[in-house]
Amino acid sequence: MRKTFFAIAAAVMIMTGCSQKPAQEHDCANKGAAAIENIMNRKSVRSFTGEAISEEDMTTMLKAAMAAPSGMNIQPWSFVVLTDASKFDDIFQGNFNVGTFKSAGTVVVMCADTTTQSRGSEERVPNSMWRDDLGASTENFLLAAEALGLGAVWTAGYPFMERIEHVKEALGLPAEVLPYCMIAVGHPDGENQPKDKFKADRIHYGKW
Amino acid sequence: MRKTFFAIAAAVMIMTGCSQKPAQEHDCANKGAAAIENIMNRKSVRSFTGEAISEEDMTTMLKAAMAAPSGMNIQPWSFVVLTDASKFDDIFQGNFNVGTFKSAGTVVVMCADTTTQSRGSEERVPNSMWRDDLGASTENFLLAAEALGLGAVWTAGYPFMERIEHVKEALGLPAEVLPYCMIAVGHPDGENQPKDKFKADRIHYGKW
Repeated sequence: MRKTFFAIAAAVMIMTGCSQKPAQEHDCANKGAAAIENIMNRKSVRSFTGEAISEEDMTTMLKAAMAAPSGMNIQPWSFVVLTDASKFDDIFQGNFNVGTFKSAGTVVVMCADTTTQSRGSEERVPNSMWRDDLGASTENFLLAAEALGLGAVWTAGYPFMERIEHVKEALGLPAEVLPYCMIAVGHPDGENQPKDKFKADRIHYGKW
Repeated sequence: MRKTFFAIAAAVMIMTGCSQKPAQEHDCANKGAAAIENIMNRKSVRSFTGEAISEEDMTTMLKAAMAAPSGMNIQPWSFVVLTDASKFDDIFQGNFNVGTFKSAGTVVVMCADTTTQSRGSEERVPNSMWRDDLGASTENFLLAAEALGLGAVWTAGYPFMERIEHVKEALGLPAEVLPYCMIAVGHPDGENQPKDKFKADRIHYGKW
């Protein structure tokens, strides 16, 4: 009987293509392909249902933003999360995106410390790489939103000072901190398709 | 006997956690989680085996780079792919990263057109958002490298003119195009761990 059991067990496992792989391998046979698909599927979403996003999802997106590369590992980023849409008209006065912000219900102001600690002193000195770090951090946030099934759009802040001077004041940012950009994020309303922006003629080999 | 077979078959399928899920569900039970894991796992890799990367992988990384968001959809990016390490000493003279470049065997110079077409005229006018687009595009490239099991590191170009003036000349870039950064990419040598950069105190709600 024992022999019969193992014979049939083996047969069943072959028939069902079932293996003894650990669970996490079953979770995702090709995680890399899924990550690349997510990059290709990210799109700007400007229309939302108005449903609030969960605290867990917000934390995941902010963790992704803080996982970005940073020149000299300065990590110049900070984040102001805004969920009271009744204040958006004041905070973002004069910004043509305020309707999008209200539709999303949540805006994350990606902030940049434009200075860094001078080595061996208390003095703060300019950091010439903060804008690059914030660009990468913003993209990580947007990709995490896509991965969570949320919709988001990057709206420009810096260098459009007329758009961010009042934001800086309204949010009480320190003197050395700038609002780099504003991300509207929420639950997408309807279908949004990514643009196909691949252009082979942008690729050069060895020389321009 | 038949009864025994099905009884044992059912037992085995339960014991082994085996299901009849369609193949695509087995491929990736949670693509979103895989995409977020890839963002969290990306790290700077500076040590490589020297093995060349495939044309297919390079195309995937460049497609990811071109899938980045772009202000006004200007898409200011272009890419110079360099695989002849014997030329790196000349092209990158004075750059302390040249050893890393030679170890990787491949360098992608992420280039930025600093101008854009003026509406309704042939004139080129400055684009004030190229640096933000290139930051996002560079991050997409690095995330695609991670997803492909490759290693890469972002090395600064702009605004360090002393590092990029000769690169611009050596690669024959047009006057309005700048080398934004240099990505060394190849097969990682040894284990590389991502930094945990999460800082809860960087997150503000409603106000700074």
